[in-house]
Amino acid sequence: MRKFVVAVVAVAAAAGVAAYIDPAYGQAKGDALPVFLTEIPAGYREWRLISVAHEEGNLHSFAAVLGNDLAIRAYREKRLPFPDGAIIAALHYRHVSSEENNRVFGRPQSFIAGAPTNIQFMVKDSKKYAATGGWGFGHFNDGKPGDEAFLKTCFPCHDQTKDRDLVFTRYAP
Amino acid sequence: MRKFVVAVVAVAAAAGVAAYIDPAYGQAKGDALPVFLTEIPAGYREWRLISVAHEEGNLHSFAAVLGNDLAIRAYREKRLPFPDGAIIAALHYRHVSSEENNRVFGRPQSFIAGAPTNIQFMVKDSKKYAATGGWGFGHFNDGKPGDEAFLKTCFPCHDQTKDRDLVFTRYAP
Repeated sequence: MRKFVVAVVAVAAAAGVAAYIDPAYGQAKGDALPVFLTEIPAGYREWRLISVAHEEGNLHSFAAVLGNDLAIRAYREKRLPFPDGAIIAALHYRHVSSEENNRVFGRPQSFIAGAPTNIQFMVKDSKKYAATGGWGFGHFNDGKPGDEAFLKTCFPCHDQTKDRDLVFTRYAP
Repeated sequence: MRKFVVAVVAVAAAAGVAAYIDPAYGQAKGDALPVFLTEIPAGYREWRLISVAHEEGNLHSFAAVLGNDLAIRAYREKRLPFPDGAIIAALHYRHVSSEENNRVFGRPQSFIAGAPTNIQFMVKDSKKYAATGGWGFGHFNDGKPGDEAFLKTCFPCHDQTKDRDLVFTRYAP
């Protein structure tokens, strides 16, 4: 986890977005609504596929990106912004070489999902998460939410994909 | 398509499995059952995720591997062999660098699903496909099935994963 956080912060810094982080958001004070997810959305492992992703750099991560019904429908109808209630999940694993597959293929060509590393979510609620573009961000390791400092790096980076309503992943047919 | 076929045949050759190909299977003569899929299983794009995969060598392919209900249940219950009716789909895309993502990250780290290349299926029917380990193999480009010579390369390669009932992909939690 620490490694992942460091990598993402490094990425944010490299992209020159760290300066955009607003210290105000992320603080749930008084009766303010929480801006980050504290619980994993139910049933996400049953959701349908949006696409796959692979990050190198310091991450070496392999992702399956899934969406709940509202998210999938919006993607298929090419409807932006996403409607309230849409949830996108990125299931991250290590991107590892498969020795058992390579033995069959006779060459080192096969990469598969290794150990799970984290699951990230974006939940659309244009009122609740108005301060972060209408999206609530979540990051979970072994079921435990990421810390606030880390979660504050999500929005500034996603906010650079405004033409896609802050969502990096495109739908794979 | 030609490039992909060449690559797979090369892989089969490299793995020394070409010699195992039995010229008898694949021939539907008289009232014999067809051993390869001629139609795409309905509704496969709605199926749940098994895992993701990435092949290099000459392939540069990115896959989402999905399963119908019977396949997913067998995986989750760690039940082998797979029951008749189980279907596994591998949705293949080009494994391409994402320039739009890299601009945000500030470094060339992001790979995504590019253009779709083909969809492959394994359908379990221990009687119908007895000659090929109980699995019927299918390969489709733009909805059209692959030719017989190509499809004959599926079984000899998959047959080397007998301990997993001829299925390469393991379930990603």
